[in-house]
Amino acid sequence: MTDDVPGALMSAEIAEQPDVLRRLLADGAAEVGAAVDQIRAYAPRFVVFAARGTSDHAALYAKYLAEIRLGLPAGLASPSSLTVYESRPDMSGVLFIAVSQSGGSPDLVDSTAAARECGALTIAVTNNPSSQLAAAAAVHVDVRAGVERAVAATKTYTAELLALYLMLGGKAEDAAALPDAADATLAADASAKAVERYRFAERLVTTARGYSYPTAREAALKLMETSYLAAQAFSGADLLHGPLAMIDGGVPVIAIASPGRGGAAMAPVLDRLREVRADVLRVGVGGDLPLECNGVPEALLPVLEILPLQRLALQLAISRGGDPDRPRGLSKVTQTW
Amino acid sequence: MTDDVPGALMSAEIAEQPDVLRRLLADGAAEVGAAVDQIRAYAPRFVVFAARGTSDHAALYAKYLAEIRLGLPAGLASPSSLTVYESRPDMSGVLFIAVSQSGGSPDLVDSTAAARECGALTIAVTNNPSSQLAAAAAVHVDVRAGVERAVAATKTYTAELLALYLMLGGKAEDAAALPDAADATLAADASAKAVERYRFAERLVTTARGYSYPTAREAALKLMETSYLAAQAFSGADLLHGPLAMIDGGVPVIAIASPGRGGAAMAPVLDRLREVRADVLRVGVGGDLPLECNGVPEALLPVLEILPLQRLALQLAISRGGDPDRPRGLSKVTQTW
Repeated sequence: MTDDVPGALMSAEIAEQPDVLRRLLADGAAEVGAAVDQIRAYAPRFVVFAARGTSDHAALYAKYLAEIRLGLPAGLASPSSLTVYESRPDMSGVLFIAVSQSGGSPDLVDSTAAARECGALTIAVTNNPSSQLAAAAAVHVDVRAGVERAVAATKTYTAELLALYLMLGGKAEDAAALPDAADATLAADASAKAVERYRFAERLVTTARGYSYPTAREAALKLMETSYLAAQAFSGADLLHGPLAMIDGGVPVIAIASPGRGGAAMAPVLDRLREVRADVLRVGVGGDLPLECNGVPEALLPVLEILPLQRLALQLAISRGGDPDRPRGLSKVTQTW
Repeated sequence: MTDDVPGALMSAEIAEQPDVLRRLLADGAAEVGAAVDQIRAYAPRFVVFAARGTSDHAALYAKYLAEIRLGLPAGLASPSSLTVYESRPDMSGVLFIAVSQSGGSPDLVDSTAAARECGALTIAVTNNPSSQLAAAAAVHVDVRAGVERAVAATKTYTAELLALYLMLGGKAEDAAALPDAADATLAADASAKAVERYRFAERLVTTARGYSYPTAREAALKLMETSYLAAQAFSGADLLHGPLAMIDGGVPVIAIASPGRGGAAMAPVLDRLREVRADVLRVGVGGDLPLECNGVPEALLPVLEILPLQRLALQLAISRGGDPDRPRGLSKVTQTW
């Protein structure tokens, strides 16, 4: 395999994910454990996450973990409040977690430094221990995904999800079944049929609820950045507040409905989509894009859900004559101010 | 004017907005002042906002106010954490603000009741003082926009923005120039040319930073729900992290760049869009969709920015043969669980 085959990098990194998860569980345990100890000692009252792009979806996932598993109110930072507007809120009692694959976005580095000055306990979750972000935060957790060469982030995303799960109330033993389930889910790949179906689609909607909502967001971003589709993600609840108007038989919908409460809460959304005769592709156990989630708890299913959707984005881009490793107008580290 | 003219309701309610703002400033002052006193007495440590649809964009705007003007960390609630997953976080010290035009969404009522049980100071901002949400919260602020009959919310949105501004660190005297500026901005309407330009557009991207980012989100929703465009909103910073790949000359971009820090931070984003030869329509002073913001502070400009964009959504829907007062598949109050 060489870099000249379209999507070779992205394809290889998608396939690496089960091993990346294994490595994080084995080699990352001590570092994650130390972060957990720091969080416990600090006894936060509120959690703020800061991230951009794909890592923002990992942060959104972690927001559910903080709220549901740690019982802490949580929010996603608007980095511009700290950077563009230079606000300096009182952040004592705040656990501030910055998530970034590269650890190189200047606005994340600046907002983490500002949060630290304002009294927050700052933790950086990155794939680069020698990054500026790792240095700016009081605590660093390395997701150990190995160098990510594809522009479209895949293995760093699932590694971030697992690291955040372990940091925010998840137990390593509950994650033990995850790498094998990831192998099985990748082996059960049924994305070819969906690629065929979407070959000429110009737009697409993704939807889910609860822990799976970040999967809908991340799938939409992957489809946008590799296949240039106008892919829009909505929580199942928000979809019914307006965006449903634009869905007819010509706008395909990808619905993620995994086992558990979030998936159960999608039932009325799926009913409503059926009523408006939407074209729905379901990601879930026994779905059009099947998951193999034997023994994996609901809170960890997002790690599996994104796998067939990464493959879909990769294959769809290739089938349209593109190269997902060389998307237009993008580079690996984005400078924002 | 009758309800049978396409868009008659939405058109009338867009035009009412300057008077709605005047009424809120005059008649709402005592109620807003009482809410401000309650917030002061409570001395919150964090602010959590809960909302759906258009009101979620008002909540996002208010998140910037809380962070920048009150110096408080803030977040948007994921209602499903409290409802679907039944989490019961410790919310002492939390100011919980639910925003809803109708006050009728069951999941907002339930999550507000849950937040109140968990120790938060709960405030409901609605257009319906006899709503369930108004009853569920400890404090209610009525935005006094009058009955909103159009399905696409317009006047309740700008009234919510102003009410939240006054509640979260804004002064009534700083808002005094707003109603006249709204009149002038509506009078300067230049949406006809944009309607012509977008007549056959299938997709569109909106972008802004800081206080104006909620405008980009709300404009995208209005275009989706009335004209069925695949309209996607990105913060200027996020746009450069992936979505830029799908922008070429065939995907029009609406960029909101008002006077102030948020607008200034858009300069490098506009540069990058120029480099990829994007088709950009600018909302701002002297822009393609001009604002008349004489004497209105930056934090209040979102009230003006949305006005020409509401008109654009209305007129574009009509030019495509639709009726924005009767969008497909939507009703005024959305039941979510």
